[in-house]
Amino acid sequence: MSKVIRNGTIVTADRTWKADVLVQHDKIIAIGHDLHADHEIDATGCYVMPGGIDPHTHLEMPFMGTYSSDDFESGTRAALSGGTTMVIDFCLGDPGGSLLDAIKRWDNKSTRACCDYSFHMAITWWGEQVFNEMPEVIERGITSFKHFMAYKGALMVNDDEMYSSFQRCAELGGLPMVHAENGDVVAQMQAKLLAEGNNGPEGHAYSRPPEVEGEATNRAIMIADMAGVPLYVVHTSCEQSHEAIRRARQKGMRVYGEPLIQHLVLDEGEYANPDWDHAARRVMSPPFRNKQHQDSLWAGLSAGSLQVVATDHCAFTTEQKRTGVGDFTKIPNGTGGLEDRMPVLWTYGVGRGRLTMNEFVAVTSTNPAKIFGMYPKKGAIVEGADADIVVWDPEKKKTITAKNQQSAIDYNVFEGIEVKGLPKYVLSRGEIAVDNFEVKAKPGHGEFVAREARGPV
Amino acid sequence: MSKVIRNGTIVTADRTWKADVLVQHDKIIAIGHDLHADHEIDATGCYVMPGGIDPHTHLEMPFMGTYSSDDFESGTRAALSGGTTMVIDFCLGDPGGSLLDAIKRWDNKSTRACCDYSFHMAITWWGEQVFNEMPEVIERGITSFKHFMAYKGALMVNDDEMYSSFQRCAELGGLPMVHAENGDVVAQMQAKLLAEGNNGPEGHAYSRPPEVEGEATNRAIMIADMAGVPLYVVHTSCEQSHEAIRRARQKGMRVYGEPLIQHLVLDEGEYANPDWDHAARRVMSPPFRNKQHQDSLWAGLSAGSLQVVATDHCAFTTEQKRTGVGDFTKIPNGTGGLEDRMPVLWTYGVGRGRLTMNEFVAVTSTNPAKIFGMYPKKGAIVEGADADIVVWDPEKKKTITAKNQQSAIDYNVFEGIEVKGLPKYVLSRGEIAVDNFEVKAKPGHGEFVAREARGPV
Amino acid sequence: MSKVIRNGTIVTADRTWKADVLVQHDKIIAIGHDLHADHEIDATGCYVMPGGIDPHTHLEMPFMGTYSSDDFESGTRAALSGGTTMVIDFCLGDPGGSLLDAIKRWDNKSTRACCDYSFHMAITWWGEQVFNEMPEVIERGITSFKHFMAYKGALMVNDDEMYSSFQRCAELGGLPMVHAENGDVVAQMQAKLLAEGNNGPEGHAYSRPPEVEGEATNRAIMIADMAGVPLYVVHTSCEQSHEAIRRARQKGMRVYGEPLIQHLVLDEGEYANPDWDHAARRVMSPPFRNKQHQDSLWAGLSAGSLQVVATDHCAFTTEQKRTGVGDFTKIPNGTGGLEDRMPVLWTYGVGRGRLTMNEFVAVTSTNPAKIFGMYPKKGAIVEGADADIVVWDPEKKKTITAKNQQSAIDYNVFEGIEVKGLPKYVLSRGEIAVDNFEVKAKPGHGEFVAREARGPV
Amino acid sequence: MSKVIRNGTIVTADRTWKADVLVQHDKIIAIGHDLHADHEIDATGCYVMPGGIDPHTHLEMPFMGTYSSDDFESGTRAALSGGTTMVIDFCLGDPGGSLLDAIKRWDNKSTRACCDYSFHMAITWWGEQVFNEMPEVIERGITSFKHFMAYKGALMVNDDEMYSSFQRCAELGGLPMVHAENGDVVAQMQAKLLAEGNNGPEGHAYSRPPEVEGEATNRAIMIADMAGVPLYVVHTSCEQSHEAIRRARQKGMRVYGEPLIQHLVLDEGEYANPDWDHAARRVMSPPFRNKQHQDSLWAGLSAGSLQVVATDHCAFTTEQKRTGVGDFTKIPNGTGGLEDRMPVLWTYGVGRGRLTMNEFVAVTSTNPAKIFGMYPKKGAIVEGADADIVVWDPEKKKTITAKNQQSAIDYNVFEGIEVKGLPKYVLSRGEIAVDNFEVKAKPGHGEFVAREARGPV
Ligand SMILES: [Zn+2]
Ligand SMILES: [Zn+2]
Ligand SMILES: [Zn+2]
Ligand SMILES: [Zn+2]
Ligand SMILES: [Zn+2]
Ligand SMILES: [Zn+2]
Ligand SMILES: [Zn+2]
Ligand SMILES: [Zn+2]
Repeated sequence: MSKVIRNGTIVTADRTWKADVLVQHDKIIAIGHDLHADHEIDATGCYVMPGGIDPHTHLEMPFMGTYSSDDFESGTRAALSGGTTMVIDFCLGDPGGSLLDAIKRWDNKSTRACCDYSFHMAITWWGEQVFNEMPEVIERGITSFKHFMAYKGALMVNDDEMYSSFQRCAELGGLPMVHAENGDVVAQMQAKLLAEGNNGPEGHAYSRPPEVEGEATNRAIMIADMAGVPLYVVHTSCEQSHEAIRRARQKGMRVYGEPLIQHLVLDEGEYANPDWDHAARRVMSPPFRNKQHQDSLWAGLSAGSLQVVATDHCAFTTEQKRTGVGDFTKIPNGTGGLEDRMPVLWTYGVGRGRLTMNEFVAVTSTNPAKIFGMYPKKGAIVEGADADIVVWDPEKKKTITAKNQQSAIDYNVFEGIEVKGLPKYVLSRGEIAVDNFEVKAKPGHGEFVAREARGPV
Repeated sequence: MSKVIRNGTIVTADRTWKADVLVQHDKIIAIGHDLHADHEIDATGCYVMPGGIDPHTHLEMPFMGTYSSDDFESGTRAALSGGTTMVIDFCLGDPGGSLLDAIKRWDNKSTRACCDYSFHMAITWWGEQVFNEMPEVIERGITSFKHFMAYKGALMVNDDEMYSSFQRCAELGGLPMVHAENGDVVAQMQAKLLAEGNNGPEGHAYSRPPEVEGEATNRAIMIADMAGVPLYVVHTSCEQSHEAIRRARQKGMRVYGEPLIQHLVLDEGEYANPDWDHAARRVMSPPFRNKQHQDSLWAGLSAGSLQVVATDHCAFTTEQKRTGVGDFTKIPNGTGGLEDRMPVLWTYGVGRGRLTMNEFVAVTSTNPAKIFGMYPKKGAIVEGADADIVVWDPEKKKTITAKNQQSAIDYNVFEGIEVKGLPKYVLSRGEIAVDNFEVKAKPGHGEFVAREARGPV
Repeated sequence: MSKVIRNGTIVTADRTWKADVLVQHDKIIAIGHDLHADHEIDATGCYVMPGGIDPHTHLEMPFMGTYSSDDFESGTRAALSGGTTMVIDFCLGDPGGSLLDAIKRWDNKSTRACCDYSFHMAITWWGEQVFNEMPEVIERGITSFKHFMAYKGALMVNDDEMYSSFQRCAELGGLPMVHAENGDVVAQMQAKLLAEGNNGPEGHAYSRPPEVEGEATNRAIMIADMAGVPLYVVHTSCEQSHEAIRRARQKGMRVYGEPLIQHLVLDEGEYANPDWDHAARRVMSPPFRNKQHQDSLWAGLSAGSLQVVATDHCAFTTEQKRTGVGDFTKIPNGTGGLEDRMPVLWTYGVGRGRLTMNEFVAVTSTNPAKIFGMYPKKGAIVEGADADIVVWDPEKKKTITAKNQQSAIDYNVFEGIEVKGLPKYVLSRGEIAVDNFEVKAKPGHGEFVAREARGPV
Repeated sequence: MSKVIRNGTIVTADRTWKADVLVQHDKIIAIGHDLHADHEIDATGCYVMPGGIDPHTHLEMPFMGTYSSDDFESGTRAALSGGTTMVIDFCLGDPGGSLLDAIKRWDNKSTRACCDYSFHMAITWWGEQVFNEMPEVIERGITSFKHFMAYKGALMVNDDEMYSSFQRCAELGGLPMVHAENGDVVAQMQAKLLAEGNNGPEGHAYSRPPEVEGEATNRAIMIADMAGVPLYVVHTSCEQSHEAIRRARQKGMRVYGEPLIQHLVLDEGEYANPDWDHAARRVMSPPFRNKQHQDSLWAGLSAGSLQVVATDHCAFTTEQKRTGVGDFTKIPNGTGGLEDRMPVLWTYGVGRGRLTMNEFVAVTSTNPAKIFGMYPKKGAIVEGADADIVVWDPEKKKTITAKNQQSAIDYNVFEGIEVKGLPKYVLSRGEIAVDNFEVKAKPGHGEFVAREARGPV
């Protein structure tokens, strides 16, 4: 069955114009005037944009002794509900284990996904087996490799391992990514804070100050430079990290930074909330920062020194969070955001004049599609592209609340924020997943997206 | 008559893909596979790109007691020959005179243009008349306003005038532009150098050091910030100026910087040439800088802190240059470049791995089209766009020499440079202007392009 | 009569040690152990430091149609009361008038000074007469020249004049100084604010944002660089200005920045006070800034990128301030501070760990003495130096209040601040001016201090 | 026997004045006019300055399978010959071994020192024993602790160890120091270069680029910040490292940077010398850099963002260097400089207008004395100070050559450089060690200098 989106204004990273969009099966097959189809979607007064891509999620992730509560079904339903039509999740193997085995586990977990998805591969150790398996990982369309510089004793790799892996990425066209925090320092600060009796959630923030993130970002950049490979820095939360990225870019390096929607609008004041639950629900790494860091991130998005807005969606229930009562280091790290990223960014970014609509599309969809090797299949409104489309009503308002959310958890870090600008229709590869603001996501509809390796710059 | 460009690889600022391009009359009407038309252009092994836009030319400009030697006919022929299908020229009125009168003069001069063109309006004085005429200038599609911070006693405006004009631009949606050098300081340095007997062409460079440019850039940015308007800095030639631009962008400001192809590849060593003619031919403002400044500019283009590569094409013959024998301040300021910008940038940028092909298109065509309000009519390969198209042969080589150039002057500042990558075919609004490397430009074919004023960010 | 300061700890910019100080007439004649004299001053538990030097005051200055209310008598009494034993005041001639005439007026005004003083010469216009008089000004020991980049239509000089004057300074060994704000922009912003009905004191702050100061600082630095002369930037109040200074110093330039004690501890919130008088009393140029700017200034003092803490003491009574009711541009610009600079800086700087005691001495006394050519006659505890000495009781507290102040005005911008650390004894060229916290200043005791011109670096 | 230095001009970090200096035994006992003593030293036309302090030497150091060839006797004789009257050597224990045992070995080695000396203690491993011994090390006057971030598998400590040690320093008032290069990356780059057949001395430079140093500096600074302790960065050789230091200082941190005289005047071109011996003799870590880095270091010294000029004197003979023929990683790292630091810095710094004479004294003597806790016993011309004095003849010239040097090695990296400005007389604690340009150093005269721990800032 063909569908046409009529009377809307198309907004891409590149431009803004009035045209209809014709969809056949799962593809966009025409863009133009007076197009017709079996089914018409009225976009009067709306913007027609590429569906959002969140390149940073952890669905049903085993972490800190539990699993994140949104799995591929509930997580992708939340995504679609907010206008995001694709996620890239982190495939985590065991230290010492096979990368290919990890892919198998992630393949199994993702069968009920409502929207398309891909994986990044985490490199949590280094050895001949990893070296040898990387080419096959890339052949299977998993072309980006995550390195944790924190979580000492668990996921963390050291500089030697990171440099080895980055060099391997350089050879194979893989894109290295880093979670940038100095794990040694974090571990000692945690121990010190606990020893001093600071065991509440605010201790989490104290143990991971901006300097600790900035240092690791700077280090990863140097290693990437030595390896001759680009670098993607996930969850860039502070000026220190952003400054390191800018400095590298001004030497001609290809370094990318990814602020999270949480860091753009929520600040460290949240951890001072006397309600343990309130504060603990906001425990994630890096923690929220102050307003000056937010200004830095917003400026980076408009200046082009930061490129992507993601969520690091890794949702734990209040129940799960309470594992850390009396010891903040045991609070599972992570918050939600998949459902809220697009409306919140639109409201605070476009609504307040910090971002143009085109920049909104760039940072939520087109840039990650390009950086991660799947453009213009994803992230574009062009003929031949996957019909992942959002029809955005810029006048529609709602107040965010956990009560009405798709996510499986019992709270929302954006609770009470009023957003203006919401997806009226969402198409996932041609299927209507949101229909006049109503979620119609279909579990199992989502497919794995194989991505291309980088060619030479 | 329809035309189709077949078997090529389309390269835009946005992406790279194999497809044919169908042209009817002056427009692109289809992009796809297996397209057919009355006339076929074979692009096998070639890249099909939006024609270049040079937003900074001075054709037949009255300056320093003479006229620049390339007029709209020879200048645009040179442009087309090098793959540039549009120029934006600076319309200069007399201080005290009417802006609308100046437009008339430029309209008259441009009747024999071979490719499309538009105008920037220079604001060389301030008063009620200027204030009152600006809206009509904008209505006529001239939406950018140039301010000279140098050329004291001639074109220069002071801070008070500049701030008044910038505020008027803010009200009307005009985009202010600046030639950024501190005119007071330059004038005194010129006088001092002459008084000390330094009257040769190298004195020109000594009188305009990078600090003098950086200062003016910084000042213009502050004034634009106070006026609440974006700013376009022409011929950004040095780190000092680039740094000021970066700093502003990191405060969230919309400031654009334009390196010239000359500054990217030629350095101050040229002025040390013992041949007076050699040095004098390279006299332009700002002068060439050293290698460190070049590195800064290249990094800015890849990092996104600089957006456009132009030429400031303002060609004077050796004869004209010789007016300045014995007094470098009388050497007409200006060099050529229209014909060479695209091949030289491709060779030094794409060929050496500093720019991707997409970035090449962005800085030579798409970015100026967007910044100056005429995208995607110009600067794009999309249906409905003007058929300004270059078919680029990446393997074709030539050695640049004045002997074979289109420009009316008797030398070329790039003389002897070997370029690899040249336009095999060039279409100007559907007309073939370069046919298998042969120039077929038609005087009078070019049309004025009215541009849109900025809306709110 | 000889005096000895016994049992104290000497603190200089250079070091800290226990020793007695022997004074004969107006000079320090010995430093050592077990010194004896006719009169003993007990410094047990106290620090013995060089008397403060405030290089930025305006006593009995004609400005904005009135005179600042502290004259050389009350102003220097206030200075001594707070541990400052010397001021450098700005000698202002009329535009078009003789520099030497201005000196005469300042000589007349300063006859009743209680402590030593010197003058900076303001260059408020440029011409042959100024050029010709400058050597005699320097011969008379006035070796620093102030340039106002703001106060358009009154004191302001333009870039051309400033560059001429800076070059003359370079020839003569004079040190140029600037009040750095873009006067053109300020004037228009003032007019605009008034036109919009913003006529209250907060309008003053809006009309002079940090960018306007940063720009002018940057410009003055460039001009000094071209002239080949060091530069002293008075009342550096913001990061923008500080950044420009740092950048210059990292090119090897000799540029000095002078934060005021007001800007270090008071912020822009003062202007939001609903009491017109409260806000108007704090009107000075540049206005107070926010906390981030304060952090920048403090860091600069400890890092060495800023060198001096001054007051710009220019005191107007509430009555005088009220001239500006209904038009903030008529509020006389200026506040007090002479009496409070040392205790407030000690409290917020040394007391809070931001400055060492040695750095405190450096920025309040030794650095200005060196920069302005009178070290170690002033600013030092060495044999042969003038006996300008403070015996500082680090445990003594008081709450600042206008009620008890020496200044002639009826309020104090530091009202209510508790300081810890006060001068118990102050010697002015050997005379006891503060005796066990009691002021004994003698009008007419102060002498003019002739200063040396710079030699080559 | 008393001595007096007459008719000279005293130059200290603080000021310049004409006076005589009277010495009794090992101390300065008076400074003034017309002083007399048993022995007169004529300083007519000369500058009388505090003797140089080189805080970075490795005398008779076991390293890379051999011992550096200058021991405490020849090394300190070389030092005195060039105007340096004190060295601080690095006391290196074995990983796993006792700090106190290491001190014993260094005590034994230093018995024949000709001038005074002190030790820094290297922390080459971490454990309870180190933690427990540190207080005694400090009590013995060794108050600074060196950490190697490079030399993997030998001296290198990781972040965890470094953070532990820095925290211990914070508790005890010790000053942490770092050799800042990323050892993991260097080790892999060495292996890679060797594997590719790059085994010559130039490979040494390729394996340790500026980015690798900048990264480690940045990391050490962050760790010091977290530990709440100042930091001293040895051999700061490049802009990357300097930039990290500046950035930290602008956050209010106390971070010090130490360029070496070699890096200030010699550049990477030396490694391109086709003579293996020539290049290998210049192998040290970090390697020489290019001219831009030199400009950065010089600017830092005048701006105050860098504080000390040292040598890292660690002299190996050509014979020893040849161990690395065919494998640059086996070339013993180190060069000489003790004899040449002062004349070369004077010539290139004071002679060329980059440094004032006072700054020369600051960076060669006073600043290290202050930073390392022994001021004004050392580094000062004040009554009571040790009589470590240089009488400097600013007109005396020589051409540096290994033939005439005191150092035990057979070459000199400054060979052929003409210096202007040399020590005519040198006093080491009152003993004449250089007499009218003739070296009279007495082995065994030198004494250990116990230094103070930091108090609170
Ligand atoms: Zn993470
Ligand atoms: Zn994550
Ligand atoms: Zn220009
Ligand atoms: Zn131009
Ligand atoms: Zn002022
Ligand atoms: Zn003032
Ligand atoms: Zn070292
Ligand atoms: Zn060393």
